Amino acid sequence: MSLIVQKFGGSSVRDAGRVMNVAGIITDTWKAGNRVVAVVSAQGDTTDDLIEKAREINPNPSRRENDMLLSAGEQISVALLAMAVEKLGCPAVSLLGWQAGFKTNSTYGNARIKTIETDRLQAELEKNNIVIVAGFQGVNKFDDVTTLGRGGSDTSAVALAAALSAKSCQIFTDVDGVYTGDPRIVKNAVKLPEISYDEMLELATLGAQVLHNRSVEMAKKYNVNLEVLSSLQRIPGTKVKENAGVEKMLIRGATRDNDVARISIVGVRDIPGVAFRIFSRLAAKKINVDIILQSVGRDGTKDISFTVARDHAAEAVAELNTLKEQLGATEIICDENVSKVSIVGAGMETHPGVASKMFEALFDAGINIQMISTSEIKISVLIDIKDSESALKAVHDAFID
Amino acid sequence: MSLIVQKFGGSSVRDAGRVMNVAGIITDTWKAGNRVVAVVSAQGDTTDDLIEKAREINPNPSRRENDMLLSAGEQISVALLAMAVEKLGCPAVSLLGWQAGFKTNSTYGNARIKTIETDRLQAELEKNNIVIVAGFQGVNKFDDVTTLGRGGSDTSAVALAAALSAKSCQIFTDVDGVYTGDPRIVKNAVKLPEISYDEMLELATLGAQVLHNRSVEMAKKYNVNLEVLSSLQRIPGTKVKENAGVEKMLIRGATRDNDVARISIVGVRDIPGVAFRIFSRLAAKKINVDIILQSVGRDGTKDISFTVARDHAAEAVAELNTLKEQLGATEIICDENVSKVSIVGAGMETHPGVASKMFEALFDAGINIQMISTSEIKISVLIDIKDSESALKAVHDAFID
Repeated sequence: MSLIVQKFGGSSVRDAGRVMNVAGIITDTWKAGNRVVAVVSAQGDTTDDLIEKAREINPNPSRRENDMLLSAGEQISVALLAMAVEKLGCPAVSLLGWQAGFKTNSTYGNARIKTIETDRLQAELEKNNIVIVAGFQGVNKFDDVTTLGRGGSDTSAVALAAALSAKSCQIFTDVDGVYTGDPRIVKNAVKLPEISYDEMLELATLGAQVLHNRSVEMAKKYNVNLEVLSSLQRIPGTKVKENAGVEKMLIRGATRDNDVARISIVGVRDIPGVAFRIFSRLAAKKINVDIILQSVGRDGTKDISFTVARDHAAEAVAELNTLKEQLGATEIICDENVSKVSIVGAGMETHPGVASKMFEALFDAGINIQMISTSEIKISVLIDIKDSESALKAVHDAFID
Repeated sequence: MSLIVQKFGGSSVRDAGRVMNVAGIITDTWKAGNRVVAVVSAQGDTTDDLIEKAREINPNPSRRENDMLLSAGEQISVALLAMAVEKLGCPAVSLLGWQAGFKTNSTYGNARIKTIETDRLQAELEKNNIVIVAGFQGVNKFDDVTTLGRGGSDTSAVALAAALSAKSCQIFTDVDGVYTGDPRIVKNAVKLPEISYDEMLELATLGAQVLHNRSVEMAKKYNVNLEVLSSLQRIPGTKVKENAGVEKMLIRGATRDNDVARISIVGVRDIPGVAFRIFSRLAAKKINVDIILQSVGRDGTKDISFTVARDHAAEAVAELNTLKEQLGATEIICDENVSKVSIVGAGMETHPGVASKMFEALFDAGINIQMISTSEIKISVLIDIKDSESALKAVHDAFID
């Protein structure tokens, strides 16, 4: 008997009708002779509603209490989904993160899964139950509830699929697969039947909101067969696996990410150790830095610019201000009106013309490039946020027809 | 350092303002040099909202999943209250039922506390934290979440006070104490400065919604000093203890309970074992029966009537219908348009005139009595629900001035 892990996001369970729809998918999979573990996020706006409730009381709650609050969201959705499965006449049991054995570290709000103790899960599967697991949450060594941060439910699902050696891990969303560009912006975007882990990772990291990069990293590490598909249309989605079929396409997709801010530290001393001091401080605060640009030194000083996720920008600036004197910086500037547009494709590493083709497309569209970052399989540029849609269209059209 | 357990019901934490108010009470108690454990119910209408969500999906969910769903309510309120305490600059930690060591049996929806493992609680108190515990919930031996049923948060608080040998257990509500009658109906109702466990138990059982009877039973068993007081006015409430000061008052209070239904089994065979068969069947289904009335046998048959909580009426009738043939009953009637009006007072057992005075007051008010039940310290009558307010006023005025 094969085991399939199926993950459903918040919009897939946002109301009673959607919950019943998901119960239909799960029970059909179970009736077809599979064992099923469903991983569920909080319903639609529940998390936002809870955050708003907290904000009214304390805009800066401790992260521990914030996790305690937010994890109630998945508790509601797993119970409701179990009830829906019962309604369809199939045996179901819902499990919270701690009941399903998710042990994490203690980074509240952005915890990492350390291990999954699967005894309870295995026992429920042995009883032929459909097991419905709260995504996004676990417990640390103190038995305190933790949440996994953005995209955490995807990570929960992939980790479970790995721990249980599942045949596949199906991520159901409100889109029906991975496209070469955001279909809401790029009209001629094409759905990919399959894609490699590395390509998906770049796309996820670069703002394609279909899958979270942590979940793709984990799928790659444990060789989990991922599939992205629609909870509303029963059609094939996009398979993510080690060796995605060779395609004629050089570029797998174009993405944009508006959740980014650029921070510039102006006039720091041009001496060794400056970059180390800046970025080790940010790392200690668990602030991830993306594109980094350092100007050539002049008159004994230089400028260092980098990008961070927008909701880390204020904290990053605050940290840097405490270092300002030590670095000899004259100014710390934060610009949130920026967007990152990227192209991804395993083919580009052997095609040196890709970057220039991308820059040409942006030039033709009259768009100024602020920063550039490249890897073996992607090129990203930072531009003014007002240009983000036209940039995405221009880049997509240049590479994908 | 004294330990005080403070319990706050759903209306006391119904919105951000009320949560901050409760945080003020708790932190003032803590700043006065006490250790504080706060037990909290779900906010205002949360439980009803969750029940409604479930009903849309499955009107008959399993009790396990129902408990999983409902226990999310307290999770939200403990996290919010902890955030409010943090906002006031005091150290707080919220704990769910399982984290606070509440071990229960497996009667989902109406679980009994078996033990409280206080290690974590003690450790948090040692750290001088204000500990905020989710009422109404625990875990059974399978590590599944259970709820304690109606009034469960009161029971949680009293059990905690007993387990931690607290100096007192303060139950904060939206009334400021225990009155001789419901002040919303009986204008001249008087607040009692103190009352004995037994009297409070009768009042609680008979519909005074200030305290749940299970919590009073437990307070009596473990000799916990209870106090009922207002979360909105900082004035003394009513103390519940073993030897309440002798009062001149014969009667401590008058109550009414509209959450009651009368079931009549008409024409059952007048042979031994009939009552046993009926009530053992109901007991097996955990349906509590209150007043029982059996008619004198005539023509080899008799009628048996009894009252149950209104939300058990349908289940009781369904059970009895399966017994109908065996009992030879001609009809099973359920009347939900009834109300139970009671008077309570330790003085009455030595005053035989109390019952007749109560019946006279009802007669004077033109109210027909359907059933009567007495104990050493209370007299209850079942009447038509349309008369419940006037009956309560008439009985209260006859005994209390």
